[in-house]
Amino acid sequence: MVLVAARAEFAARGYQKASMRAIARAAGVDAALLHHYFGSKDRLFMAALEFPFEPRAVVEDVFGGDPATVGERVAAFVVGLWEQPAVRERLLALVRTAAASEEVAALMRSFMVTELVDRVAARLDVEQPELRVELVMSQVVGLAMARYVIAVEPLASAPPEVLVPLLGRTVQGYLAG
Amino acid sequence: MVLVAARAEFAARGYQKASMRAIARAAGVDAALLHHYFGSKDRLFMAALEFPFEPRAVVEDVFGGDPATVGERVAAFVVGLWEQPAVRERLLALVRTAAASEEVAALMRSFMVTELVDRVAARLDVEQPELRVELVMSQVVGLAMARYVIAVEPLASAPPEVLVPLLGRTVQGYLAG
Repeated sequence: MVLVAARAEFAARGYQKASMRAIARAAGVDAALLHHYFGSKDRLFMAALEFPFEPRAVVEDVFGGDPATVGERVAAFVVGLWEQPAVRERLLALVRTAAASEEVAALMRSFMVTELVDRVAARLDVEQPELRVELVMSQVVGLAMARYVIAVEPLASAPPEVLVPLLGRTVQGYLAG
Repeated sequence: MVLVAARAEFAARGYQKASMRAIARAAGVDAALLHHYFGSKDRLFMAALEFPFEPRAVVEDVFGGDPATVGERVAAFVVGLWEQPAVRERLLALVRTAAASEEVAALMRSFMVTELVDRVAARLDVEQPELRVELVMSQVVGLAMARYVIAVEPLASAPPEVLVPLLGRTVQGYLAG
């Protein structure tokens, strides 16, 4: 019931404008209880849309360390994530839903910009940091499409230890160059 | 009639195994006439699927020059291609059709591998050249998704002169590094 109300509120108002108070009211539960169970809007969003990783934790873990090696950490995280069959299935479902519906695409876009792009960009010491982060996202999305959806060989079968250094150099170039 | 027969033959046998002779027979036209009008299998495929650029010409133009600046030429070609509204519309239609149908995806895959990946890889002086070319394709597909489908800002509005150098460096890294 809470997750149904959350999906409706997120769909109607977008991620940034959706309010936990409105979701609690629509679901007929106490707002304090909703906060107690989900902690924050991003966690409620993840639960409602079955989003399979926590952007805030990734920003902390991956972008918190040495900037000289951030590309390799991003690449290792991304490839590691997609190599888990359950996560991959969930991410592909989200991509397909977003590709089929402009509303879902807009919702995913506002979630990703708020929780990932803006947070990472705030940590970067380059010009046009948002553009750099989005170029990284574009490479990640494209790699997923080519490797797991289109499944072109030899890319589809390349082992992570071959992919991660090549991808890592690209990411490092976008974020630091 | 010829294009209907071509689509059926390509769909049934894939790009590599499809034969111009079989297409001519199915369409009830002379094989020599088919060759006269379309010249080669890749041109017949492009006509049948309304594929909006000629891979063989791109390989010649873009990969024929100085290897030290190939990344920039690839980036300029790709961004220039997608910036043309009619081409963009056609490419997006192909991506959507391929995403919705495993058969069309397999057909597009065999066309791209034969006419683009293998031809470019043959010109590269790096280890695992096919993997490198496919990583470039993955970045190109991902950029198109992020800029034109998901339309995330500021990437969607970034001018070509800002994008091309950033993309060019990535492509150069994959193809030459």
